Amino acid sequence: MSAGLEQLAERARSAAQTIATAPSGARDEALLAAADLLETRTGPLLAANAADLERASGEGLGTAALDRLRLDAGRIAAMAAGLRAVAALLDPVGEVVGGWSRPNGLRVERIRVPLGVVGVIYENRPNVTSDAAALCLKSGNVAFLRGSASALRSNVAIVVALRDGLSKAGLPQDGVLLVEDTGHDTALEFMRLRGTIDCLVPRGGRELIERMIEHATVPYVLDGDGNCHLYVDRSADLDMARDIVVNAKTQRPGVCNAAESLLVHRDVAAEFLPIAARALEGVELRGDAATRAILPGILEATEEDYATEFLALTLSVAVVEDLDAAIAHIRRFGSGHSEAIVTRDLASADRFVREVDAAAVVVNASTRFVDGSELGLGAEVGISTQKLHARGPMGLRELTCVKWVVRGEGQIRQ
Amino acid sequence: MSAGLEQLAERARSAAQTIATAPSGARDEALLAAADLLETRTGPLLAANAADLERASGEGLGTAALDRLRLDAGRIAAMAAGLRAVAALLDPVGEVVGGWSRPNGLRVERIRVPLGVVGVIYENRPNVTSDAAALCLKSGNVAFLRGSASALRSNVAIVVALRDGLSKAGLPQDGVLLVEDTGHDTALEFMRLRGTIDCLVPRGGRELIERMIEHATVPYVLDGDGNCHLYVDRSADLDMARDIVVNAKTQRPGVCNAAESLLVHRDVAAEFLPIAARALEGVELRGDAATRAILPGILEATEEDYATEFLALTLSVAVVEDLDAAIAHIRRFGSGHSEAIVTRDLASADRFVREVDAAAVVVNASTRFVDGSELGLGAEVGISTQKLHARGPMGLRELTCVKWVVRGEGQIRQ
Repeated sequence: MSAGLEQLAERARSAAQTIATAPSGARDEALLAAADLLETRTGPLLAANAADLERASGEGLGTAALDRLRLDAGRIAAMAAGLRAVAALLDPVGEVVGGWSRPNGLRVERIRVPLGVVGVIYENRPNVTSDAAALCLKSGNVAFLRGSASALRSNVAIVVALRDGLSKAGLPQDGVLLVEDTGHDTALEFMRLRGTIDCLVPRGGRELIERMIEHATVPYVLDGDGNCHLYVDRSADLDMARDIVVNAKTQRPGVCNAAESLLVHRDVAAEFLPIAARALEGVELRGDAATRAILPGILEATEEDYATEFLALTLSVAVVEDLDAAIAHIRRFGSGHSEAIVTRDLASADRFVREVDAAAVVVNASTRFVDGSELGLGAEVGISTQKLHARGPMGLRELTCVKWVVRGEGQIRQ
Repeated sequence: MSAGLEQLAERARSAAQTIATAPSGARDEALLAAADLLETRTGPLLAANAADLERASGEGLGTAALDRLRLDAGRIAAMAAGLRAVAALLDPVGEVVGGWSRPNGLRVERIRVPLGVVGVIYENRPNVTSDAAALCLKSGNVAFLRGSASALRSNVAIVVALRDGLSKAGLPQDGVLLVEDTGHDTALEFMRLRGTIDCLVPRGGRELIERMIEHATVPYVLDGDGNCHLYVDRSADLDMARDIVVNAKTQRPGVCNAAESLLVHRDVAAEFLPIAARALEGVELRGDAATRAILPGILEATEEDYATEFLALTLSVAVVEDLDAAIAHIRRFGSGHSEAIVTRDLASADRFVREVDAAAVVVNASTRFVDGSELGLGAEVGISTQKLHARGPMGLRELTCVKWVVRGEGQIRQ
């Protein structure tokens, strides 16, 4: 391993002991101080970001990527507001998750504690640096960050503000650490820092996820694809179904909880599909034969279309025989993220909720609600599509684990 | 991948849909029927086991391993009793873990659901076959089992009883599947069945754990080493400390929650160590210089001794300066399993509980209580020393995950 990374890892482990047991007041104070520093250092921050932008532009980074990389005074204020919002949340650390007494008098408690060192690998949005650090510190963890090369100067400037915030609160600066070596090999070493990183959260595309699955030796939580379906049942209120499909597809098409596929019960297909097509003007529909018999102008959907998370104004459509066929289709093509049904029938709703295996099942509402803040978590680390540890929107609690505390008066085992 | 394993994987996925949504009554019925079948088939089971024993003995398997492999009528009755005990536990599936309403009227619930397919890799104790299958089925999961070559005939016979039990309850036989190809390559393929195995629980030694960390692509929960410490504080009741150290070390030395290291505050070392040494007669003590100044006859402890889980009647001993030094020693050498303090001082107890980072911290009781049944979980899958998903004793709940259910009346996101 590179000496630099090994040294950072040691500093992370060392700081974790103090951060984990620091009172929440000090951790909040650090976040609030960092928020102020980000705002008072807007000028230098913008200068660092301008240098990143210039270099990235020279290296041919695309327009969308440059936009994600770009900071302005508004975005810096939003980062500061994000730090303050996280500071205002309830501290997850110390929550007594459960407890009971045993017949021999032992008192058992399960108490929420920080994980220790949380690693985050992410791409070129500098605000992820402050968001991720805030969530980690709020939950008592060291934030061990590895951003992209293109955002390095911006990230360094943001991390310095966070570290200075920690100092002001009397906490070790190493509560936030940035890996400044952005080489490919270092990323690989980073995901193999077993014994240092207690949980790694990769925030990136499919290539990163696949590298994680193949090479990571540290525990991780994956934020995977969202190939989300909306099923319009025979008994659906079709006006409601129209509004929901428009919202789920078009309100923000580039995100993981947007709908990618519309399934319509055959008994209402002839009535609903023309309504939906009109309301979805500007969305490219791709349908099966039964859909195209009703909407003859649209493209044919291939198997691959049904398996695709478009993240764009494209929607695959299929007419299904019944609820069972809808569930079978979702089982085959869904990615286990968010699946919705529109129905007035109680039994259909109950069966859909029970039989669809996804992080979130939604009845008579838009898939777009499957999100940490919309569901009431305050802030989110991501949306897990895995089943272990965390599933669905991940809030602060998902950055903690539980310690068993057993208290006795000298009990020994017989 | 071998065609046989691929076919088994497909059968596991297919059965998982039915098992996950089967009512708990049917799953319990299957366990009870299997318990009866194990007992009525005691003769053929013993014959299968005798064939395993004969072959293993011919291949030079050691006495202890042969004993673990051996079945007799009592052990078969114990397996049946285990199935009935698990059937009698509360079903974890369907538990509403939490729920609330959102300002827009959305109703949010988090509901406990099965993981799907749980894989278990284990060694040559045939009772693990029925224990693991019982825990998986009780929690609504398919049990996908891979035992050792030496126990193959016994495992097949037990699995047939479990599968027949499933049939009797009207459930798919493939709720329990055994990988009969016990080759090394198949084990590797098994731990890479991503998309089939939702959680893999390896029950084996360090070599298996290391192979898992390096090669597994499926999610897993590790049951790691237990290098457990007992710290005798300055204020300890020394009679209590003596009884606890004897129990923690000798009541069952070969298990992970047995104590491996004794730390004694220097102020009580001269009084306590001779008491402890007398009470621990038959235990080999290995001490640091301060310990040997008090107990001159004992061996010197090396760094490696302090890092070793002896699993035998051997105990490393160190005299520590104070509570801080005890915590630092545990931080350095502990494996994050179970750590105990004996003290009468409230502040010492509180600091030990807060600052020691382990799955379980124990105050004034034996480490031997850190066990699923002793802590009230009914049955346990193992004791996790990892922090993600499950930490400490794992009961049925740790074989489940949580699904978000969101119900509305047509809400769309603004």
